[in-house]
Amino acid sequence: MWDRFLRACRREPVDATPVWFMRQAGRYMAEYRAVRAKHTLLEICRIPELAAEVTLQPVRALGVDAAILFADILLPLPPMGVPFEFAAGEGPVIHAPVRTRADVERLRLFDPEEDLAHVLEAIRILRRELDGKTPLIGFGGAPFTLASYLVEGGKSTHYARTKRLMYGEPELWHAFMRTLSEVVRRYLRAQVAAGAQAIQLFDSWVGALSPVDYAEFILPHVKHILSDLEATSVPVIHFGTGTGSLLELQREAGGTVIGVDYRTPLDDAIRRLGPGVAVQGNLDPLLLDAPRPLLMRRIDDVLARASGASGHIFNLGHGILPETSPDAAKFVVEYVHERTRR
Amino acid sequence: MWDRFLRACRREPVDATPVWFMRQAGRYMAEYRAVRAKHTLLEICRIPELAAEVTLQPVRALGVDAAILFADILLPLPPMGVPFEFAAGEGPVIHAPVRTRADVERLRLFDPEEDLAHVLEAIRILRRELDGKTPLIGFGGAPFTLASYLVEGGKSTHYARTKRLMYGEPELWHAFMRTLSEVVRRYLRAQVAAGAQAIQLFDSWVGALSPVDYAEFILPHVKHILSDLEATSVPVIHFGTGTGSLLELQREAGGTVIGVDYRTPLDDAIRRLGPGVAVQGNLDPLLLDAPRPLLMRRIDDVLARASGASGHIFNLGHGILPETSPDAAKFVVEYVHERTRR
Repeated sequence: MWDRFLRACRREPVDATPVWFMRQAGRYMAEYRAVRAKHTLLEICRIPELAAEVTLQPVRALGVDAAILFADILLPLPPMGVPFEFAAGEGPVIHAPVRTRADVERLRLFDPEEDLAHVLEAIRILRRELDGKTPLIGFGGAPFTLASYLVEGGKSTHYARTKRLMYGEPELWHAFMRTLSEVVRRYLRAQVAAGAQAIQLFDSWVGALSPVDYAEFILPHVKHILSDLEATSVPVIHFGTGTGSLLELQREAGGTVIGVDYRTPLDDAIRRLGPGVAVQGNLDPLLLDAPRPLLMRRIDDVLARASGASGHIFNLGHGILPETSPDAAKFVVEYVHERTRR
Repeated sequence: MWDRFLRACRREPVDATPVWFMRQAGRYMAEYRAVRAKHTLLEICRIPELAAEVTLQPVRALGVDAAILFADILLPLPPMGVPFEFAAGEGPVIHAPVRTRADVERLRLFDPEEDLAHVLEAIRILRRELDGKTPLIGFGGAPFTLASYLVEGGKSTHYARTKRLMYGEPELWHAFMRTLSEVVRRYLRAQVAAGAQAIQLFDSWVGALSPVDYAEFILPHVKHILSDLEATSVPVIHFGTGTGSLLELQREAGGTVIGVDYRTPLDDAIRRLGPGVAVQGNLDPLLLDAPRPLLMRRIDDVLARASGASGHIFNLGHGILPETSPDAAKFVVEYVHERTRR
């Protein structure tokens, strides 16, 4: 069943539980490292044929039930007027972070058809390659997660500057969030128009907030994106990590599917989210490196806890790490299919 | 009421909600920076008079309801046979991490009366200074948190090596945990014998584990420590961050008080923990840097959510950051006392 991923997102019957992995295209695969040996990460993102090629690698090698466009959540930054680079071993570095009213006001609401045309072209190539075989997921970063990079200038432990801006200048914060959520909304709409058959919104770092802060400072802006995407018929996966206390609020913000990291047991998540939404998750990515008997026990545990879901997409709780063996990922796909075959 | 902290730990009536702060002795205070200008962090830990002096600084300056011994959770490492240093801006660095069976077998079950005599001496000095005025909290790191430093060689994002050891060599992992929990048990027992009137067990990084992994790989070892401490009459605060999904299991592992980080609303925590245990927490530390009206609103929110607790100790969800103003910390102490005065 080529579309079991899309069917599970829509809570329709499936022949087996669909599986894909966050960061399924990446350094753990020799095919990817071969491309990376000749191109930087940003080159791969910016050359549609390369992005498409890298996107297809895990589809061919692992037999996953969805392809996810190879891109980076920070791609909208340069067209907004904020350049960045990947420093070796450090992740993204933004040399001129956004910290003042002037910085926020300078951010450009760009046209993705023009300024991120290469992403949309990669989607079009992929749809031709994958049509009728594997659905294609597009994605973007959520406003808080993008803001944390923009304000901190890179990855962060405490999100101290971001929270100081949020707490200290709430009016400026909301203006900043409005810009970011409108940028993301347009970008994701353009991905859908180009052919993305599902969207994942990555609010990877929003678990750094308490529910009361999320409700006040974040929720309306995520809702701006997700309620607009609901008007397309494309399913949207709303994902974050460390969001055990935010699930009900994330549900309120929107999404066809809620992505849950490995910390929150899926049966708890399903009970708290209530009916009318599917779930995605939630194996600890490090379990891919575990001996098979333990890996199998933990997969069985995830599947048992997900048994009450009206729709379940099997995934990790976060991205695959570079040291992981592709064999383990392939094993998980086969094992989940075998255990859930109806 | 000098002992309102101890009374709240024991769920006895108090005249006002007690307040203390994790990292209340630290770089945010000018008095501390003056000492640090002349001594390294480890020197302060190892010279009992300095450790005592630094411990007293926030008691004098802020009027908190408990003193917490100035020390580091890694102090037991060198007497176990694992030296470490603090690298500038990087946190602890362990040049010879623990990764093999031989490394685990080499770990020494030392005698704290001998090898960490300076810590116990600091406790004795502090008890003389504080007696009848402010209770003194001793503390130690929990086995998973210590293991994460020992295996990774410092701080970590994914705890990849630690989890690979845990998943890949469970028998070795449990032997490692048994050693660590016995080291911590002896160390905390010695602190109680020296006069610590309460103990906080810091399992700061255990929120990186799923409940099923916590139950299998961690819980029995934390229980080894906490069930032994229950035999003393000293209250024990069992603290972690990102533990929203682990609360019930932490409760099962033990503790008079469960410390909750800012992500989990206290009313949820209280409901899930059930009767017979007090709670500590849980303001986001960054709120200390927020404008007073928002800070007051969020304190009120914490106090309202804690109103159903049989015992509540007001604290942050994690440690004070170096940029925070001592005035804000002092304000929180006064405001919480004022709002909860019976």
